[in-house]
This record gives sequence, structure tokens and C-alpha cells, in this order.
Amino acid sequence: LRPLRWDRERHVLTILDQTLLPFEVYWVEAKDPSQIAEAIKSMRVRGAPAIGIAAAYGMVTALNSPTNDIKESLNALAKAKLQLDAARPTAVNLSWATSRMLSKANRLVHEGEAKKVDELKELLEEEANRVYEEELEAELKIGIYGFEKLNDGDVVLTQCNAGGLATGTGLGTALAPVKLARALGVNVSVVAPETRPWLQGSRLTAYELMTDGVPVTLISDTAVGLVLYKKMVNSVMVGADRILADGHVFNKVGTFKEAVIAHELGVPFYALAPTSTLDLRSSVEEVKIEERSPDEVRTVRGVPVAPEGVKVYNPVFDVTPPKYVTAIITEAGIIYPPFEKNVRKIANM
Amino acid sequence: LRPLRWDRERHVLTILDQTLLPFEVYWVEAKDPSQIAEAIKSMRVRGAPAIGIAAAYGMVTALNSPTNDIKESLNALAKAKLQLDAARPTAVNLSWATSRMLSKANRLVHEGEAKKVDELKELLEEEANRVYEEELEAELKIGIYGFEKLNDGDVVLTQCNAGGLATGTGLGTALAPVKLARALGVNVSVVAPETRPWLQGSRLTAYELMTDGVPVTLISDTAVGLVLYKKMVNSVMVGADRILADGHVFNKVGTFKEAVIAHELGVPFYALAPTSTLDLRSSVEEVKIEERSPDEVRTVRGVPVAPEGVKVYNPVFDVTPPKYVTAIITEAGIIYPPFEKNVRKIANM
Repeated sequence: LRPLRWDRERHVLTILDQTLLPFEVYWVEAKDPSQIAEAIKSMRVRGAPAIGIAAAYGMVTALNSPTNDIKESLNALAKAKLQLDAARPTAVNLSWATSRMLSKANRLVHEGEAKKVDELKELLEEEANRVYEEELEAELKIGIYGFEKLNDGDVVLTQCNAGGLATGTGLGTALAPVKLARALGVNVSVVAPETRPWLQGSRLTAYELMTDGVPVTLISDTAVGLVLYKKMVNSVMVGADRILADGHVFNKVGTFKEAVIAHELGVPFYALAPTSTLDLRSSVEEVKIEERSPDEVRTVRGVPVAPEGVKVYNPVFDVTPPKYVTAIITEAGIIYPPFEKNVRKIANM
Repeated sequence: LRPLRWDRERHVLTILDQTLLPFEVYWVEAKDPSQIAEAIKSMRVRGAPAIGIAAAYGMVTALNSPTNDIKESLNALAKAKLQLDAARPTAVNLSWATSRMLSKANRLVHEGEAKKVDELKELLEEEANRVYEEELEAELKIGIYGFEKLNDGDVVLTQCNAGGLATGTGLGTALAPVKLARALGVNVSVVAPETRPWLQGSRLTAYELMTDGVPVTLISDTAVGLVLYKKMVNSVMVGADRILADGHVFNKVGTFKEAVIAHELGVPFYALAPTSTLDLRSSVEEVKIEERSPDEVRTVRGVPVAPEGVKVYNPVFDVTPPKYVTAIITEAGIIYPPFEKNVRKIANM
């Protein structure tokens, strides 16, 4: 289920609107940077890698307006970068992708590789394709390494949506091994907790896996403990938003409970993420856990579920100490404890 | 917040409709057994003790129709019992309460203590009051024993609604110690997880505590781990549906995760329940965990939150092994490990 599709003829990005899933399957066409910025801002595209890919193609669409002046094109690209970066200022992948595209364009023009606007456009399109392909390659490698941990008949517990909807490629990180296993004829399935308050588990993961033909069972977040207790799953595979040098894993709230219970019951717990997620500088105390609006807990899809004005604590992430992490699976290899030594080894490769 | 109120003048039970809370505060009047049976069947009254109390008063309302024939009254009571018992056939407290009331009536008549219908009605009303008062007394004792475990400034994590809405008295089991503490001027507060899929935490516990003036913070079920990790709570206090002789605690799904994480992080975990909850005969393998409709997970208050037809596992309870239970708090005293010895001791008192 690939939520971003680039039309090579018309130079248009087609985007699966994730705000409406799974209730409506609606594709939006974006043909200029402002339309792509809007799609990012309104969360039709979500997930760090997906935002990066969308922004890279967004830069290409800046050259859709007809001009023969190469300087004018570079100006249009600089303007597009500002516009795209402003869509979600905290998304690191966004400015990373637009900077990469803009530098590439400047280099191509100044080094004389692109003399005409058409040449520049074609070479930038190739660069955007590379952004996409590098992401997909990393996920394929994560999938191959994670596949080592799966046996025929295994059931995997996940959390949130670390799938192809979040990465834009259609494959994903935490879901890459099970998808790869299915593609290779190995019989594996997934248990997805709904992941309140945003319900990425029920809205996105369940939908993505059903679409991709991977058997999935949806549970409420309260049932995670019983599912592990009853040995209904063989391993836990989750994504990660940030992994520290000592092996602390920051991921969607609810991950920590899965890790502790899995550890207690002898079920392996894996965090699957690209090496770009490794943060070798911060200590666990330095990482702030973002809190979001109380209304996300007070309501579900706009419907009230709690007394008006009730006090709410609504953290976005939680942190899993290294003690509970069996291994970290990256595109550069599997990192085992002791993490304080082995995370740096992989990061410096 | 007392959800059942008996009108001694008009012999009518006023019931706070829990299907509408907290969105509407609506009191239903029930003046005959069929109206009380309807309230139980439609879950306007819920929670084992509350159902028992409602059924006891339901038997009294069987004598509301004017008759002077005492035999006719006994027939009306027998008929009322059948009608009430059928409202929720699996609720043990229901048939326990109606049997107690019917036996009492038969004894009163056959032993000549009640010769007229009016006398019978008055004595049965006293018996129903006793059902209520015995429940309240047990909860007060649970509250006093639990209060020993609270210090000024404590924050207590709970689960589901083991409050006065569930017991019918307005006090509750797991919530009795914090309410008592507040009444005694001790500053304690509660963190309530919303408890999907039925949302008793957000709909009932948050509402009950706000109404009773106990500070409460609502969280999503995914945030339970972080709240314990950040030491935002000092203890966990939950109710119990069934406690085995070896200390296994069956309670609302989601309880097990709180117990494991609390144990791992050194936070005490207490199960609070009357001794009527002790089951000395069953082994943990013998207790079946009821599953309910997939639609409870697929929807929230009628609004879809997942793909149509997605496979769901929806257990009602989970089981917490004795290893994770710091103590069981009953009206007969606090039970500490070793449970396999001490549960029987309290049960046989």
C-alpha cells in the first residue's frame, strides 16, 4: 500500500489522504509546492520518511511552471523550499529533503551539468527518485534483518503504525519483516493494538495490512497484557522515533508497556528503525516528551467520550530503557546489547 | 455519587442511567419489578453489587400493586424473582439478592411474623435496606484498610470503574480509600486510564470523582507505562471480579499490564474487593475469560474507528498472577503473601 505515487509523465504527486483512512480511500493530486505543503500541513501525508519523500517531489513540482530562465528556476526552488519547510517546522526530514534538493540544483547549475531548465528538471526528478529509493532500500534491509527473527506461524505484536503509510514507500520499518516473510511464503501474522488516542493501529495498521494481505487482529490497548500472557504472540516489533547511544528507545506512547511485559514473560522485543534515528548526543533526561491537546483523549473522531473539561495528561511518546530491548534492527545490521558499545559501532560504520 | 435512591414514601427506586453518563445526567424512576428488570437488562444499572441492591428493592416493588391477600403477595414475589433473574442471567449477585428476599418473605409469612401485606412489605423493605447497608459497610471497611496504604500527596492509578457507580452505594471498592482520605482531609488524587473498549475510566470514573470532588487526571490506556515510569503515581488500586485461593486476580482487561509494570518499577499494586469475590474452588486454568462483540473495538460510541470487518480479539478480563500483587484488601482485612495460605485464612474467618 504505497501512499505516494509520482507521475513521471505529468510531474504530479498523487497522495493517499491519511486523514480519511480507512473510512474513505481518497487520492489527492498535488502539482505544485503549495499543494504539497498543504498535504503535509493537514497530515494527509504523515510519518517522517513519507514527509521527506513528498517534499523532495514537491521541489520538482516547483519547475512545473513554464520558464526557460535557469536562474528563475533556482529562485522558484528556493521559494518552494521555504514554503515546504513551513508546513511542519519540527519535521527534520522535511528540511533535510528540501535542502538536499536545493543544493543539488545549485550544484548542477553552477557546475554546468544542467544548462537548460528541462535538464535541471530531469536531473532533480532523478534526485527525488533517489530519496525514495534510498528509503525503500533501507526498509528492505531492515525487513531482511528482521526476517531472521521470524519463524513460520509466528504472530507479531506491533504498536502504532510503523508501516508503509508512515514511510511513504508502502513497505515500512516495523512491518517490513512480516511483509517480506509473507512475500516469501512464510506464514506470519500481526496483532495490532488500536493505539489511542490517535488510533493509528486501528485506522492505519489494520487497514494497511488488510490491503497488503497480511492477516491482522485488532485489539484494544488494554488487551496487550493478556495477549502476551496467553502467548498469543511470539515477538514484539515496533518502530522508533529516536534511539539513544545507550539504547533508550523513544517511540509512540504505549511501547514501553509492551517492552516491560514482553521482557517479564520472555518474549523478544525489537525496535526497527533506520540509522538516521540514532541520536548519539542526547541523554535520556534531555529528550523532552511532547504533550498534545487534551481533546485528543476527551474525544474520538470528534465524539466526546469523557466529562467536559476533565484534566488530561496526553504524552505523545514514551521511553523504553535498554534493559527491555532485545535488539535494535537497522538497515546497517542488528544491534545487540551491550548497546552503549554497539550502537556507536553501527552508527560509525 | 449514589446511583440508586430508594424513596421510602413512594416505594420507588430512582436510578441514575449509566448508559448516558457523563453526557446526560438522567434519573429513571422504577416502580415495579419489570421496570427494574429493564434497567438492569439495558445496563442503566451496572456492576455486581449495584445490580444486587437494585434487585432487592425490585422485590419490594412487587408489593406495590394493591392486594390484601398475603398468598397473592408471595406469588407476586416469586414471579418478580423470575422476571428480575432473567434480566442478566450471568450476574450472580442478582439471583443471590432475589433469593434472599424471597426466602425472607416466605419465612416471615410461614413463621407468622408478617400476617398482613403491609407488614410483609415493611419487613421486606428493611431487608432490602440491609442488603444496601451490608454492601456499604463492607466498602467502608475496605476503604479504611486501604487508607492505611495512602500518604498525604499520594496519586493513585486505577483501572475501569470500581467506584460507587458500580456498587450502587456511591462509595465503591478501589475508589473507597481515596474518597475516605479526602473526607478526612488527606490530599490524594487519582489517575484514571480511559479503559477501552467500554471507556468506563473516562465515562464513569472521571465523572464520579469530579462529582465527588476528588482530583482526577484522565489518560489514554497507552500512557499507563509512562505514568508509572515517571513516578507520577505512588500506588495502583484496582477492583477485582474474582480472586482465586492462590492469589490470581481476575479483573477488567488492562489490569495485568498495570500490575507487571508496577512490580517491575517497585510501585505497590493492590486489589480491593469484598470477600464475596474470593473463589476458593477454581484453578486459574478453569476460569474462562469472556469475549465480547468485535464491534466494541471497531467502534466508539457508534462511530467506526477501524476498517470494516477487521478481525478483533476482545476479551473482557485479564488475569494477574500473585507474583505481581502486593496485597489484597477486603472488608475482613488485608491479605499479604503467601496468598496460597492467607487467602483461605481470611475466607474462613
